[in-house]
Amino acid sequence: MPLGERGGWERSESRYCGVETDFSDDVPSLLSFHISTGGFDYVLAPLMNPSYRPSLVEGNGLDTKVLPVSGSDLVLAPSQWSSHVVGKISSWIDLDSEDEVLRLDSETTLKQEIAWATHLSVQACLLPTPKGTSCANYARCVNQILQGLTNLQLWLRIPLVKSDGDSMDATSEDLNDSWELWNTFRLLCEHDTKLSVALDVQSTLPSESSLGRWMGESVRAAIISTDSFLTNTRGYPCLSKRHQKLISGFFDHAVQVVVSGKPVHNLTKASDSNAEGTQKHPLRSYLDYVAYLFQKMEALPEQERIELGYRDFLQAPLQPLMDNLEAQTYETFERDSIKYIQYQRAVAKALVDRVPDEKASELTTVLMVVGAGRGPLVRASLQAAEETERKLKVYAVEKNPNAVVTLHNLVKLEGWEDIVTIISCDMRFWSAPEKADILVSELLGSFGDNELSPECLDGAQRFLKPDGISIPSSYTSFIQPVTASKLYNDIKAHKDLAHFETAYVVKLHSVAKLAPSQSVFTFTHPNLATKINNQRYKKLHFNLPSDAGSALVHGFAGYFDSVLYKDVHLGIEPTTATPNMFSWFPIFFPLRKPVEVHPDSPLEVHFWRCCGSSKVWYEWSVSLPTPSPMHNTNGRSYWVGL
Amino acid sequence: MPLGERGGWERSESRYCGVETDFSDDVPSLLSFHISTGGFDYVLAPLMNPSYRPSLVEGNGLDTKVLPVSGSDLVLAPSQWSSHVVGKISSWIDLDSEDEVLRLDSETTLKQEIAWATHLSVQACLLPTPKGTSCANYARCVNQILQGLTNLQLWLRIPLVKSDGDSMDATSEDLNDSWELWNTFRLLCEHDTKLSVALDVQSTLPSESSLGRWMGESVRAAIISTDSFLTNTRGYPCLSKRHQKLISGFFDHAVQVVVSGKPVHNLTKASDSNAEGTQKHPLRSYLDYVAYLFQKMEALPEQERIELGYRDFLQAPLQPLMDNLEAQTYETFERDSIKYIQYQRAVAKALVDRVPDEKASELTTVLMVVGAGRGPLVRASLQAAEETERKLKVYAVEKNPNAVVTLHNLVKLEGWEDIVTIISCDMRFWSAPEKADILVSELLGSFGDNELSPECLDGAQRFLKPDGISIPSSYTSFIQPVTASKLYNDIKAHKDLAHFETAYVVKLHSVAKLAPSQSVFTFTHPNLATKINNQRYKKLHFNLPSDAGSALVHGFAGYFDSVLYKDVHLGIEPTTATPNMFSWFPIFFPLRKPVEVHPDSPLEVHFWRCCGSSKVWYEWSVSLPTPSPMHNTNGRSYWVGL
Repeated sequence: MPLGERGGWERSESRYCGVETDFSDDVPSLLSFHISTGGFDYVLAPLMNPSYRPSLVEGNGLDTKVLPVSGSDLVLAPSQWSSHVVGKISSWIDLDSEDEVLRLDSETTLKQEIAWATHLSVQACLLPTPKGTSCANYARCVNQILQGLTNLQLWLRIPLVKSDGDSMDATSEDLNDSWELWNTFRLLCEHDTKLSVALDVQSTLPSESSLGRWMGESVRAAIISTDSFLTNTRGYPCLSKRHQKLISGFFDHAVQVVVSGKPVHNLTKASDSNAEGTQKHPLRSYLDYVAYLFQKMEALPEQERIELGYRDFLQAPLQPLMDNLEAQTYETFERDSIKYIQYQRAVAKALVDRVPDEKASELTTVLMVVGAGRGPLVRASLQAAEETERKLKVYAVEKNPNAVVTLHNLVKLEGWEDIVTIISCDMRFWSAPEKADILVSELLGSFGDNELSPECLDGAQRFLKPDGISIPSSYTSFIQPVTASKLYNDIKAHKDLAHFETAYVVKLHSVAKLAPSQSVFTFTHPNLATKINNQRYKKLHFNLPSDAGSALVHGFAGYFDSVLYKDVHLGIEPTTATPNMFSWFPIFFPLRKPVEVHPDSPLEVHFWRCCGSSKVWYEWSVSLPTPSPMHNTNGRSYWVGL
Repeated sequence: MPLGERGGWERSESRYCGVETDFSDDVPSLLSFHISTGGFDYVLAPLMNPSYRPSLVEGNGLDTKVLPVSGSDLVLAPSQWSSHVVGKISSWIDLDSEDEVLRLDSETTLKQEIAWATHLSVQACLLPTPKGTSCANYARCVNQILQGLTNLQLWLRIPLVKSDGDSMDATSEDLNDSWELWNTFRLLCEHDTKLSVALDVQSTLPSESSLGRWMGESVRAAIISTDSFLTNTRGYPCLSKRHQKLISGFFDHAVQVVVSGKPVHNLTKASDSNAEGTQKHPLRSYLDYVAYLFQKMEALPEQERIELGYRDFLQAPLQPLMDNLEAQTYETFERDSIKYIQYQRAVAKALVDRVPDEKASELTTVLMVVGAGRGPLVRASLQAAEETERKLKVYAVEKNPNAVVTLHNLVKLEGWEDIVTIISCDMRFWSAPEKADILVSELLGSFGDNELSPECLDGAQRFLKPDGISIPSSYTSFIQPVTASKLYNDIKAHKDLAHFETAYVVKLHSVAKLAPSQSVFTFTHPNLATKINNQRYKKLHFNLPSDAGSALVHGFAGYFDSVLYKDVHLGIEPTTATPNMFSWFPIFFPLRKPVEVHPDSPLEVHFWRCCGSSKVWYEWSVSLPTPSPMHNTNGRSYWVGL
């Protein structure tokens, strides 16, 4: 009985809620009680009798013994096993014990239980938390198992703890930060996609920065103990504000909630039984509260719903200079009204600066739209002229002959023939009949200059008057380090170098932003340098918040911000982003090997913009805390054609 | 005029000695002076006028200018350029300067000089030392260049310095340890094989442990300034004992010496001119001293000369259980007389323990040689019996039918028919007619158990008497972390995962041993456990010496030591190795990604011996300072067949 139906959330895994149970050899009754009576969607149940130890089986005659599992596979239909049961691996196992007998028993049991779970076709198994800070033998064994799995998912149970004391002693036996345990385990298992986290949410939560890291990790479940619930004025369980916020974040990241433990809220008999007098499930009030939290979440805005399918989906960036855009693409971008409103504001301000009110009726401003596409910037410019009552002459320059067709129709339809001249030509090679007062363009990529706006505008500024205005007048790219295990694994799945040296356009969602973004490259137009050089080099230092704990950096999220004219800007850098604008998703620069960063040592990153005779490309590398190899040397994997 | 001709050294690059010169636009005279007059083998000379700066060339009209290089390519024959000139890249270049003009000039000049050097076909160019601790832009540019090179080698000049103060401040601007600079540069250039080090040897040398690291790095040249020389009683230049030892080490690792600087030893006129009164080259006495050091090196021992071709050459380990050895292989191993002397000593001691003197003439000891091969252990056992005057009955068990042929001939030839019974059978499956007092075997691999001695002897111990003796009675494997850039690059050249997950037998030479070896797995025979388990797991911590500085670990050198009987042992672990025994080279376990280790944080390593139904394999991983992926999961890349 999923938690509810809300706009945009119906496809999320997080609408299912499980319950952790003890071992039972009567699984049908277990299901009946927790699912039919209790209203939970599935049980998290041990598959093997917890008293089982292989070494205690008499005479080691395993071949004549039946494994003490929770009943035959036939007690449930295969679809029931698969949809209603998550296997819970025996919690006594300890593969890193000093006790060799326990270690070997643990390995044998773990392998037997996983084999049994596979036989039952359950979807996932919960692996118990590593007992100490050392987990290499456990990880070795799980890693061996992972190589043989096809469908079964493994959830490693990790307590959500991080102490404030920052003991950096690597050999300390105390667990300061459970993320470290997860990170070691997952690196030893080489980021296997079938290995995820089940977080054990405690009554005390670590800092916000520390929690934020988990949003970029592969978290599948959040197990909330009844101990973590507070009691509201009516005696019912509820959660603290911080817990509520965390759970909402989990819902938003497809994390399933599992309720665990004994009921600790003694509700009156009256409320314990429903109208028909039948007994309620003892954990029902906890489930109800989780469902209440789920249902009170705000519905996703329309634009977010449209973009749901793009979340964390890697796209190759457009190459609008080399390739011609398709009608569909123009269609999408033209719907982004906010963008054109900003352009209209910028053009209006420029027109007023250029032509004083008293000369408005006599002076005609020459405005060139370079990269006119199907005409939206022409329209915005004409609207700005109308709004400011300035006289305008427009040249609409467009290299894509297909877009020029639409442009011609637009001009005819709107009756702009006297004002707008259409030029079907690459702006870099056009011989303009006169010089422009204002050059309007929108050649920006997610990373600002990555669709070669600098090269195009350097070519076009020949026909701008010496005191002419470029809109945009400048743009700057930004990056910030992120944890993004899903993106990393999607890139890794290609099994080649090239995909790790490519920048992707992607709607970042399951991503943890580890430090504020910083500016990378800035380009200003017109460019008045005697010798224009669009190569750039920037060295950046990022520091994680001191209370965040360590984190794994899978790459860098990139953005841009552009000054269109004076105070009119346009951009996607998170802290200054233009609201409700959807033309650009961020860009993502991956790292070939993720880098672990500690709050007390900076991450030093280098970005280069390199220019060749026929292409432009980026190279990037990390030099601290440990040097990475150079990425995309000579643009061997990813480049933008001139 | 190479430094000399000594046994075993004639093939070494290190017999050439160069001299560093200033810029000259008359290269033929330069060569004549330094090579013909001076006796040096080559010059290390700037190829471009040091006053050249691209940005100062008038009007930037580079297209009409001739580069200010050291004369036309035609002034020397191509073979002269290639054998007598190493190009010295302008030392003013600084690609990580804050000054953008200098940075761009540096990049342009570096690329022009490398292009010119390639045009001339010189073999190598010396890259100037990075100016600060930051070298990312320099490395990016060199890395771009490396992608396009085929024959030209680049030597990065690195001063041989390491201060004792262990400042761990990552952002410190002072260079504490020049190895860090090299390491950053080389990691950014991804271990390119065309990038090596030229070490600038200073008058003060860092600690021994710190120097030792360089023996595992790709060092091509050692540049020794005249300032670093002392003066002997006759006024001639000489080097300190520590410098001498270092230079000998370089000679032994194919590092070429280059003499640099002005003469600082004022010798009397008399000794300055030779019999004919012609003037000597001012640096001749330094060259003579280097030649003297070269010539006084001890000739290589015979066995070392034989093994020269195996130095740092990776071999797949033998699989003598799955495959049958060839006659050639038997031949080689049988020549290792020390090994059989140790066996004879062990058998003699066991015979005396087994049969007191007074019963020597009445008791016959039953001795089985399992894995008898072509008979050397049979002979050693019989000699032990003769020496101790004990009566012996020998069963020689051998699974290789080809070796059995030779064995038959041997027994006939030696007249051993009454004493020796030949059994052509796998010891694991033989039904012995009686039980043995002594079981003799030599089934050891470089890593002890890696040729499955445990599994074979577990199978053979069925026919050992309850109080019987196994020779060997135990064996232990050892590992130690090493820097081994050549081995790493040879493995990387295969461009696959499997070669990084394979253990190799290799005569380690250009390898830096970073910490004393530690024991890994031990096996004892006979194995009296009720349930024999030959799986093993060992966690090890290694600490670098505190004065070593950081180092890069490319993998682990592995060895074994075996107790044959009581105090008679046999092994290759460096500190206890049996002298003059050559049957085993060490084993090498590589790491997929080298791990940088600092003296103040331990290296934690895990080794597993895993057993399946048809194979045995090792897995290994590093968990500190940063977790590596698991190597060779489920024996996917490397295993030994049962």
